[in-house]
Amino acid sequence: MGGVWGFGVGGVVGGGKARRLPRVVRERQMLDAAVRSFARHGYQAASMDEIAELAGVSKPLVYLYLNSKEELFTAVIRREAQALLGVVAEAVVGRGGPPDERLWAGLLAFFSYAAEHPDAWTVLSVRARTQGEPFAGEAARMRDEITAFVAGLIGEAAREARGGGGVAGRGGAAVGGREVEALAQALVGSAESLASWANATPGVTAKEAAATLMDFAWSGLGNLMKSERWSPR
Amino acid sequence: MGGVWGFGVGGVVGGGKARRLPRVVRERQMLDAAVRSFARHGYQAASMDEIAELAGVSKPLVYLYLNSKEELFTAVIRREAQALLGVVAEAVVGRGGPPDERLWAGLLAFFSYAAEHPDAWTVLSVRARTQGEPFAGEAARMRDEITAFVAGLIGEAAREARGGGGVAGRGGAAVGGREVEALAQALVGSAESLASWANATPGVTAKEAAATLMDFAWSGLGNLMKSERWSPR
Repeated sequence: MGGVWGFGVGGVVGGGKARRLPRVVRERQMLDAAVRSFARHGYQAASMDEIAELAGVSKPLVYLYLNSKEELFTAVIRREAQALLGVVAEAVVGRGGPPDERLWAGLLAFFSYAAEHPDAWTVLSVRARTQGEPFAGEAARMRDEITAFVAGLIGEAAREARGGGGVAGRGGAAVGGREVEALAQALVGSAESLASWANATPGVTAKEAAATLMDFAWSGLGNLMKSERWSPR
Repeated sequence: MGGVWGFGVGGVVGGGKARRLPRVVRERQMLDAAVRSFARHGYQAASMDEIAELAGVSKPLVYLYLNSKEELFTAVIRREAQALLGVVAEAVVGRGGPPDERLWAGLLAFFSYAAEHPDAWTVLSVRARTQGEPFAGEAARMRDEITAFVAGLIGEAAREARGGGGVAGRGGAAVGGREVEALAQALVGSAESLASWANATPGVTAKEAAATLMDFAWSGLGNLMKSERWSPR
């Protein structure tokens, strides 16, 4: 282990405190710094020098831990996407109550995360997608995972509605199969678009964005025009 | 003018027919070829050789008309975005009838265009955005224009609903100002997401995609769960 630390922790060598930080903490600092740097400058223009400086470590240590700028960017995309999926899942999964209350909880968690971690949101929604392969593919896989999760929730809600006496519509079922997937795509697309707009528009809170999307996605424009907004029971 | 044509129309020199094509037609052929090539390979990997070959002209003629690969790509983004906005506007603007019927007409026009011009949709939704500046900025401006158009329609529908006896909601108005902009962002985001999914999913028709989005955006998930789908009056 001495060899690893001896590889250089830059200006903090001899500071004592910094040297004793466990690897997992150091790595987190580097990834935090990388998120800021990639969000600000994009993948190409971000420099390993800046990332090392922001993390308070030497550049060789960044390479030792994360191997290359490419692997660092991939690690950032994965970590941020999993974190985002994590907070949304935590807000929704295992939570009882009616589907609209669960959707509200999930949307609020999503918009709060995007608002509180604007750099992470910029990396996921812009930087990862605009950098070509392999990053765009990585970002697409993460988005597929999130969409599949949302489709699961919509499917569950649809089954509950049927089981709970929901009237069968065209084709005998409320919502099913491919339509669930399509609705999940629509919901994810609207949430992405609204989160980027909210982060770019001064004064829009996460709660306001979540409420607007709830009105749109749950009540629909038709009811909104009649001033029938969604509201918690 | 002889100088221009003499600059080379490749293998078709002397063919007579090809040489007499007016500039505007030649240019359209080049842009058509460029859309296919940029959609297939992306901006970087697309070659001016392939574009010239697909257009049936010489490479120098492509440069003579469009100046550079960068200008050609910018011209493609502008043409395709204007065409898309054009078909949607044509389906909606000046059309009477209730707002839901107008939204349906607009969505059907949008999904039909994306389905019938998959290369154009790929260029606008993926290629233009993933290529960095100046193209991402160009694509963003085009998207802003489309979102402003959609916001205008939603605002109009909201005013009609108010004027037509719509019940005033929170704050005394059905929908207004910043919320209209937010709803437009949500609608545009869901349409983009669904169009890309529809084009990538075998067997999904433009009509099916438009119907799903109508159910989602107009009726809302809440009513869909109760099997209350949107349907034309």
